[in-house]
Order: sequence, then C-alpha cells, then structure tokens
Amino acid sequence: MKDRIKIGLVGVGKIARDQHIPAIDGHPGFELIACADPNARIAGIAHYQSLEAMLDAEPDLAAVSLCAPPQVRFSQACVALAAGKHVLLEKPPGASVAEVAVLAEVARERACSLFTSWHSRHAPGVKSARAWLANKELVTVMVRWKEDVRLWHPGQDWIWQPGGLGVFDPGINALSIVTRILPRPFFLKAADLYTPSNKHNPIAANLDFRDDRSTPIRAEFDWRHGDEEIWEVEVTTTVGVLRLAQGGKHLQIDGKSWDLGEEREYSSLYERFAELISDGASEVDFSPLQHVADAMLLGTRYSTAPFFH
Amino acid sequence: MKDRIKIGLVGVGKIARDQHIPAIDGHPGFELIACADPNARIAGIAHYQSLEAMLDAEPDLAAVSLCAPPQVRFSQACVALAAGKHVLLEKPPGASVAEVAVLAEVARERACSLFTSWHSRHAPGVKSARAWLANKELVTVMVRWKEDVRLWHPGQDWIWQPGGLGVFDPGINALSIVTRILPRPFFLKAADLYTPSNKHNPIAANLDFRDDRSTPIRAEFDWRHGDEEIWEVEVTTTVGVLRLAQGGKHLQIDGKSWDLGEEREYSSLYERFAELISDGASEVDFSPLQHVADAMLLGTRYSTAPFFH
Repeated sequence: MKDRIKIGLVGVGKIARDQHIPAIDGHPGFELIACADPNARIAGIAHYQSLEAMLDAEPDLAAVSLCAPPQVRFSQACVALAAGKHVLLEKPPGASVAEVAVLAEVARERACSLFTSWHSRHAPGVKSARAWLANKELVTVMVRWKEDVRLWHPGQDWIWQPGGLGVFDPGINALSIVTRILPRPFFLKAADLYTPSNKHNPIAANLDFRDDRSTPIRAEFDWRHGDEEIWEVEVTTTVGVLRLAQGGKHLQIDGKSWDLGEEREYSSLYERFAELISDGASEVDFSPLQHVADAMLLGTRYSTAPFFH
Repeated sequence: MKDRIKIGLVGVGKIARDQHIPAIDGHPGFELIACADPNARIAGIAHYQSLEAMLDAEPDLAAVSLCAPPQVRFSQACVALAAGKHVLLEKPPGASVAEVAVLAEVARERACSLFTSWHSRHAPGVKSARAWLANKELVTVMVRWKEDVRLWHPGQDWIWQPGGLGVFDPGINALSIVTRILPRPFFLKAADLYTPSNKHNPIAANLDFRDDRSTPIRAEFDWRHGDEEIWEVEVTTTVGVLRLAQGGKHLQIDGKSWDLGEEREYSSLYERFAELISDGASEVDFSPLQHVADAMLLGTRYSTAPFFH
C-alpha cells in the first residue's frame, strides 16, 4: 500500500461525489486522504476549508484533483503546483484558453504533472472510433448533444455566470470527443448562439466547422431538451458511417454495433493520471475550449426566453 | 531587378491604399504586379475580380498579401497556399483562432512562408521596450487604446459583423504590442464588454489580465473617444516606468524620451516578410487574437446606446 499516490480533492460538488470519489476509491494506484471545500465534506476523509489549509496540514499529499468551477481553477492550480503537487484539472481546464497555456509552463518549471482531463474522451467507444477513422476520408460530420439543463445542473448558478460556459459545459464534452476521433484538425466557420435574456451564457448553439478540405462538421447543442438525452456523433465517410451514441458508450459502424464493455470514464481518466505521474509527464490539450472561445468570438447572438431554475 | 519577389494584393480597401501599397512600392525586395478586388483597382497595376482569377493569369506571382476582412482570410489563404504562394496575413490573421493553427499546418505541408503580421509590433519603440523590459520585475501594466471609430472606420460594416472584432480591431494592436514587450505570458482574468444594442461587437471593453506572478495588467479600449487618440502602454517596474505612446512611436523611460526615428511600421513588416521567404520560414503568432477570444468567452456583457455611422 505504501506505493499509492496520496491525493486530495478540491471542490466537493456533484461531479466529485458522482464520479471522482468512486473512481479514486476504486483505483489501486490512489489513496484519497483529504478534501477541501468551504462547505461540503466527505464522510471518513480529513476535511479542510481551503486548498491552502489542506496543503499545510497534509505534507504527504502528492497530487490534487481540482473539481471546483472553472473560474477558480487557475489560482488553485498555481497554489498546488507551487507546493510541488501533481494536478488533475476537471474539464474545462480553465476559464480562458491563455491561462491553460500559462499553467502548462508553470507545471514544466515545477516538474509536476499537469493533466487537462476530458472525461468523455474515456468513453468506451472513443478509442475504437479514433482508430477506425484514422485512415478514412470524411464526407460530413453531425454532432447532436441535447439534454435538460434542469436535470444535469439543478440549481447551479456558476454555469450561467461569465466563464461558466452555459450549454458549452456539456457541449465541450462532444467537442472533446470530436477533436479526439477526427483525423484532421478543424475550425469554426460560423455559429448561432441562443442566450436567455436574463443569462450571460448560451442555452443552445449551432456550430459549423470545417477542416482544410472543407468537410462540413456541424454541432447542435441544446439544453432545452426534454425526456431523453441525445449525445451522439455521426461521421459519414466515403466507405461507411460511424456512429457514437450515448456520449460515446455505443459504437456503430454501418449499422453494426460493437460491444465495448461497461462505461468507466473516470476510472480510465485516473488510470491516465497515474501513468502521467509515473512517467513524469504532462498532458495539456485545450482544443475543445479553443473551439468554444472561437464560437463566443465569432458566433451570431440571439436573445431567447428568460431561464429560471 | 530580376530578384524582386513578385507580389499580388488581395482586398484594395483603406489599409491597402494607406499602408500596403506605399510600403511595397518603397521596398527594394518586392514588386507589386497585380491586385484582386471585386470593385476597387490600383492605377497602373493589373486588376482581377478575384484571387483565383489573379492566380490563373499571373503564374509568376511568388507571394500574396491578404488585406480583405478577416472573415474571408482563411479561404483566401488556402487558395493561395494551394497554388504554392507565400502568404502575408493582415491582422487579425483569421476570424477564429483554430483556423490560424490549421493554416500554419497547410503552409508547412506546402513549404510556403506564412506570416501572421501584426503591424503595431513594428512601431519604432517596440523593439527597445522589449529589450528594456526583458530583465525587469513588473509591478503593474496599464494600456489605454481610445479613438473615434467614425474617423478610423468610416462607414465600414464588417467591423460590426460576427468575426469583425468591433473595438478589438484597434485593441488587438495594443495586445500585439503588449504580448511582444512583456517578459512573461499573461491571461485574461475578467472583462467588461460594452456593445451597442444594434450591433454584434463591443464598442468598448475593459480587460483585466494577470501573469503567473499575479501582476495586474489592465487594458481599456474605447471607440467612443473624441478629438485626440490615446494609444499608450505604461509599464511600472520595480526600477522605473516605461511608457510607449502614440501607438508605439514614442518611448519614454522614467520621463526621459528616446529618439527612435520615423514611423515605418509597414516597411518593417514587409522587410520581415522578405526575410521569412528568403529563410524558407513562417512566423505564426495568434496570441493577440487568443486574448480577444478569451475576452468574448468570459467577459461580462453590457448593452449600450445604439451606434449609427
């Protein structure tokens, strides 16, 4: 047991409880010894009001996992890196793209591992989709990411505030998959953004991307969707259609479904973090956030009905 | 004379007439042989309706200078690079950040020089400011970029349309200087964006940046400024104050002014382009546009009085 990486968790919110804590508990390489949050606690784990207090009191910590909202991620990451800790960032890795580039430089100077995690990239179908598409010629790509914000972000205010991304908070999961599986980089050509009249961030967005071969890549994000979620990516190639559904859990190629085993995104994510720490390496990729920033830069804005929780 | 680089100009608008044509004419390394624009012409120079027509008719062209609005820059650059031409991009280098990264890759594959030019970096005081600041410890940075949009963009619509940047069109000049002269990279922490109720892009913006040492870097952009322009950067260090005024023309260190010779931004810019072509190299830097995208991503938006030309 002495080889396990002692880790602390910052921000004990919904994503920490639903995903991080079970994933860390189930991973032989990590030991969760502390958490920091001004309010919430984890039963049986040392609790601190702040990251600083946790670092002071727990010198054996080797790594921290930052799960608080993106608006505070940079300052927390800087504090942790200054203390020589390896850092896992929940997605998105920051409130701005430029700050992630600065963080990468700080991590390099401190010789710490920095991991900009994108959990959806660890969905069961992503690796196979990427491998199948690697040598294909694309015809068109259609992304649909539609869900009910009230179900997935009940009462959460930070998603509506500047830096909170709005519908791009789930949409960036789609973008993290698409940037991973498509064989060529792409960029935003045009976008329509629909923002509730009483909010700062879009509740829906339609994005039109292209690659350098003019392949049309369309993404539709909508947070006003009822009943059943749609989280799917459909890639039409010259030799067949690939479809990733249920957020990457189900893979279909030309109508044939593949059995990919159970969903274990966060287990795989911590697996990767352990590997990075062991290799003395970092993994920093902000391309999904880059596309969102580009959408906010050049998208056309429309005001829609006010939103209330 | 046979060694001069034959160059074509795309987009015969205000910036082409005011700056590019005189700079190319005055440079011994270039020969302007053609221009492309659906409407405007240059006296004494072969004229074409489109870039494609110009490339077809002028096989001797070695380079093109793209001065049309940023919304069409990517597709024009792709056409030129596909034809094996070296490409100079007016600022900003694209309508999105991601497209500039894709272009860089295309240029590399085509073995052409790509130059994302930022004319303000060629202002007389920039090189000396950068050198003086290289080993200084910063205390605070204040940027003021204030002018009258009616004077500098008379009747221009593209600046107000998606991808046109609004007040960031001049503001990005300030950012191109600041990213060049400050010794450490920085990132946006917060921003206030003021957008006319009938327009898409901000007419004024206040930006608060930080570097990894928490140095406050503040930029104030305003297009509603009368009479006299203010284009200045003031950097307070632990050993003195550096001030770049008049867009980089005047340099003052602790009150002492330095004689830097006359302004020749675009001559210096074409000098650099010639050097890149001769070296078989590219220079691609989208950091000023990155900061604007970050501002549009996480800035707080305020609606202000409608704007009419």
